[in-house]
Amino acid sequence: MKFKAHINIMPLKELLDPQGKAVTSSMTNIGLPEIENVRIGKSINLEITADNADVARTKVDEACRKLLANQIMESYEFTVEEIA
Amino acid sequence: MKFKAHINIMPLKELLDPQGKAVTSSMTNIGLPEIENVRIGKSINLEITADNADVARTKVDEACRKLLANQIMESYEFTVEEIA
Repeated sequence: MKFKAHINIMPLKELLDPQGKAVTSSMTNIGLPEIENVRIGKSINLEITADNADVARTKVDEACRKLLANQIMESYEFTVEEIA
Repeated sequence: MKFKAHINIMPLKELLDPQGKAVTSSMTNIGLPEIENVRIGKSINLEITADNADVARTKVDEACRKLLANQIMESYEFTVEEIA
C-alpha cells in the first residue's frame, strides 16, 4: 500500500527564529503591521510504501528523527494518509 | 480579535525540487528506500489582529502574495483560526 505523509518541522518555541523575526519586521514595511510573531519552518511531503498505516507512521517518524528534523532546535509533527 | 494562521508553501508540481531529490536519495542511505518523491517547502506560522476571520484571511493572502511566496515557483495554502 502507498501512503503520503505531510510533515511540519518548526523551530522550538524556546528558540529565537531570526528568519521569522526578519519577516515580521518586513510585514510593517509592506503595510501589514497587524501581522506578528512569524515563525518559519519546513513543510515536507513524501510518499511511502508500507504494509499498513502503522508501519508507514513508524517509518516516517524514523525519517524525521534520523534525517529531516534536528531535534535540538526543531519539533516535528506529521500526518499519514493512504493514497487512493 | 486575534487569529493565528498556518501557511504551507510548496514548490510547484511542474518544477524540479533539487533539495527534495537530494533528500529522497539520502533516504536509501539511511535504510528507508520505501520513501520517495520527497518535496520540501516552507511552513509558516503567524499571528494577526483583525476585526473578523474574513479580514484576517485577506491579510494573510496579501502577505503570501507580496512577501512569503514566490508564485512563479511556489504554490501556497493556509488556514486561519481564532486564538481562544
